[in-house]
Amino acid sequence: MATRIAPLSGFPEWLPGQRIVEQHVLDVLREVFELHGFASVETRSVEPLEQMLRKGEIDKEVYVLRRLQAGEQETGAGDDTARARQLGLHFDLTVPLARYVLENAGHLDFPFRRYQIQKAWRGERPQEGRFREFTQADIDVIGRDTLPFHHEVEVARVMAEALSRLPLPPVVVQVNSRKLIEGYYRGVGVESADAVAGVMRLVDKLDKVGEDVVLRMLSEEIGLSEEQAKACLALTTVSSAEEELAAQVRGLGVSHPLLDEGLDELLRVLQGTASLRSDRVAVVADLSVARGLDYYTGTVFETRMVGFEHLGSICSGGRYDALASDGRATYPGVGISFGVTRTIAPLLSRGLLEASRSTPTCVLVALAAEESREAAAAVASALRGRGVPTEVSPTPAKYGKQIREASRRGIPFVWFPQEDGSHQVRDIRTGEQQDADLAAWVPPAEDLRPSVTGTVATPS
Amino acid sequence: MATRIAPLSGFPEWLPGQRIVEQHVLDVLREVFELHGFASVETRSVEPLEQMLRKGEIDKEVYVLRRLQAGEQETGAGDDTARARQLGLHFDLTVPLARYVLENAGHLDFPFRRYQIQKAWRGERPQEGRFREFTQADIDVIGRDTLPFHHEVEVARVMAEALSRLPLPPVVVQVNSRKLIEGYYRGVGVESADAVAGVMRLVDKLDKVGEDVVLRMLSEEIGLSEEQAKACLALTTVSSAEEELAAQVRGLGVSHPLLDEGLDELLRVLQGTASLRSDRVAVVADLSVARGLDYYTGTVFETRMVGFEHLGSICSGGRYDALASDGRATYPGVGISFGVTRTIAPLLSRGLLEASRSTPTCVLVALAAEESREAAAAVASALRGRGVPTEVSPTPAKYGKQIREASRRGIPFVWFPQEDGSHQVRDIRTGEQQDADLAAWVPPAEDLRPSVTGTVATPS
Repeated sequence: MATRIAPLSGFPEWLPGQRIVEQHVLDVLREVFELHGFASVETRSVEPLEQMLRKGEIDKEVYVLRRLQAGEQETGAGDDTARARQLGLHFDLTVPLARYVLENAGHLDFPFRRYQIQKAWRGERPQEGRFREFTQADIDVIGRDTLPFHHEVEVARVMAEALSRLPLPPVVVQVNSRKLIEGYYRGVGVESADAVAGVMRLVDKLDKVGEDVVLRMLSEEIGLSEEQAKACLALTTVSSAEEELAAQVRGLGVSHPLLDEGLDELLRVLQGTASLRSDRVAVVADLSVARGLDYYTGTVFETRMVGFEHLGSICSGGRYDALASDGRATYPGVGISFGVTRTIAPLLSRGLLEASRSTPTCVLVALAAEESREAAAAVASALRGRGVPTEVSPTPAKYGKQIREASRRGIPFVWFPQEDGSHQVRDIRTGEQQDADLAAWVPPAEDLRPSVTGTVATPS
Repeated sequence: MATRIAPLSGFPEWLPGQRIVEQHVLDVLREVFELHGFASVETRSVEPLEQMLRKGEIDKEVYVLRRLQAGEQETGAGDDTARARQLGLHFDLTVPLARYVLENAGHLDFPFRRYQIQKAWRGERPQEGRFREFTQADIDVIGRDTLPFHHEVEVARVMAEALSRLPLPPVVVQVNSRKLIEGYYRGVGVESADAVAGVMRLVDKLDKVGEDVVLRMLSEEIGLSEEQAKACLALTTVSSAEEELAAQVRGLGVSHPLLDEGLDELLRVLQGTASLRSDRVAVVADLSVARGLDYYTGTVFETRMVGFEHLGSICSGGRYDALASDGRATYPGVGISFGVTRTIAPLLSRGLLEASRSTPTCVLVALAAEESREAAAAVASALRGRGVPTEVSPTPAKYGKQIREASRRGIPFVWFPQEDGSHQVRDIRTGEQQDADLAAWVPPAEDLRPSVTGTVATPS
């Protein structure tokens, strides 16, 4: 059967060795999340289209499903009722979480701590760091009606711990506070909620259009004085570690109770993550981080990977006061989403993340002749009984060939049953071959499973 | 934000405790597959539609994707070129494997041993055991140009070992051989390949239309004599353990070299799995198993779960001589696919598979007052450092309430930091509270992670 083969842009796939790297990353994430008492949830891959289209701006990115042989009424182009029945692939894990929480609220414990590691899909134009199919790893803590602030510190802590245990280049977690920003603007004299949102929107354009244009728009569109507009922009220059943050913000000469509250919370996030900071994970206040401040209501996170800033944020999230609401209760939450594919794809493609072998196999049992296959299988079975991944050689080739085959696949040990019933095992990296006790031999712990190592790219 | 919530028929989702059961099943499968040297592969969720439609008969089941805002040329109804560009969600893991092998043949080692645990989608009408989104766990061994028979024994062994380690009701793995059936038919005097395929197709209707109708069709459509037709049907009555199989088949009085070869292979599969058989996993020859014998070329597998026969086969596969071919090489394979969702969904919904708790958390650190949160976090951190999943109580409620909360969630231990700096830990199942050393305490191994237990349903 001839088959048309073509990689699809935006739908990454890994070779077995690369997949071992990805599995390692997912295993570490799961391990850290579960150590902190987050329970796994998987949601179905699809949601009703009308539900996903609430956030109008992402229309273009949704993949809609259609059964190939569906009747006319199911294709539903244009018809509102039909459209309500249409299903799309989820584009993130937050919309499904909101629906899951509402659907199962009666069966969940609040605060509900869940992690979710799953694929999501967006029909975007593919480029580095942007895929059509990608894996996200989310943690969220969801309260019913209330959610104490300390969970904002907690999710930052959990994700910083996870990042510190991954074999990645150094990362910088940037923290901001919607309360601090809003309090500051109010202290500057921006009065209404609409005006505050307007200022946030315009200040976010700073990188694109420059200071002069933003200052003019703040004056023309929001009606700020020149002094007010300049004060608003001044806040974006604050990016600092814990020690200087308060002094820098206070130095801008603005005061407001909400600013005080936001500053206090931001300091508590920095203090709460202090023990996790290292030369590989920095956690800093960055008051220029915008992260849809409109949607978030408290702490906000973004994360840059050093040398890979062009990817954008690899790990983002924040506090939102209303993930969902069902008339009886409102569900506030705080969460962070780590972009697994976005982060590891460029590292894998540059060879900066590698597995020590492309197979789980630790021992290859050599085969003297096809007739000894059952005896070799018994050896393999004994080793597996002690947790050692083991294969029997597929063919009774010359021993030299069987060793070369193992070597090519990175399998560290070849086992030789001897004619007298004794056993020998050869470390094919050193060539050393020794007697071994089939009832007791185990490999060194570091050889049992493939190991994963990251090489930090020198930023150019 | 109000959200429309509705379960979607055919798209199962689990509560956190049920998800822990599913994770356990997936962990066991991965563990067994990796112990046998199978490497993980994940393929993208989509394949070009034209590729999936090769097997014409499953047209109706494919979900086609469309970007919501795609231009006319991308919707492609009817137009062949546009259709070639259309993508559908994969409906199994075998079509993607074939494409993956061809695409990456130069980077893979053959025989290529891979496992793949992933979701698949079919737009079928949902019913028990049939879902629109479901998880499959496949193992396959793929050769280049040749693949020795012993791999047919091997995959049966690996899957039988996996099944025996899962907390399921008893299962019966039914094995058949395409060679045995074809050899037998040829021995009966069915000459051409077309006629052999025709007999297989008609005999497969036995359950639906009955013996008389099949006998008449064998005569009218294939041209068999009454004696030949009866002989063909006689073979379906053979279902036997290893010891009697050869005698039963020989007793039918038909002989042919291919029959001998198939019988020998079938016996070798039964012998090769003998050590894995138990009161929970039976492996038997069943010569009525049809399993698309047209497609398969050697050993064929199906699996029934006792008391849940209405689900159909929960674990199926076989040997195929041409998974794929690219002009330079042909890739024969043998594989088995375990229907994870099909198997566990009815057990979960009947409460026959349960986790000991609905959270990974093993220890809840009690909180005397909000001011002691940092001290409690330090305790939690010390326990996590020894691999103990730990949470700090979300609020400083009365201790009785914190204990009840832990109890309700199935968390086995509550930790009490004392005012004098010492520590106590309470097993809330027994109520026993003891002094504990923060630097050394670990829970009993069986409490560290949630355990999963299956209750075997009494067949009614």
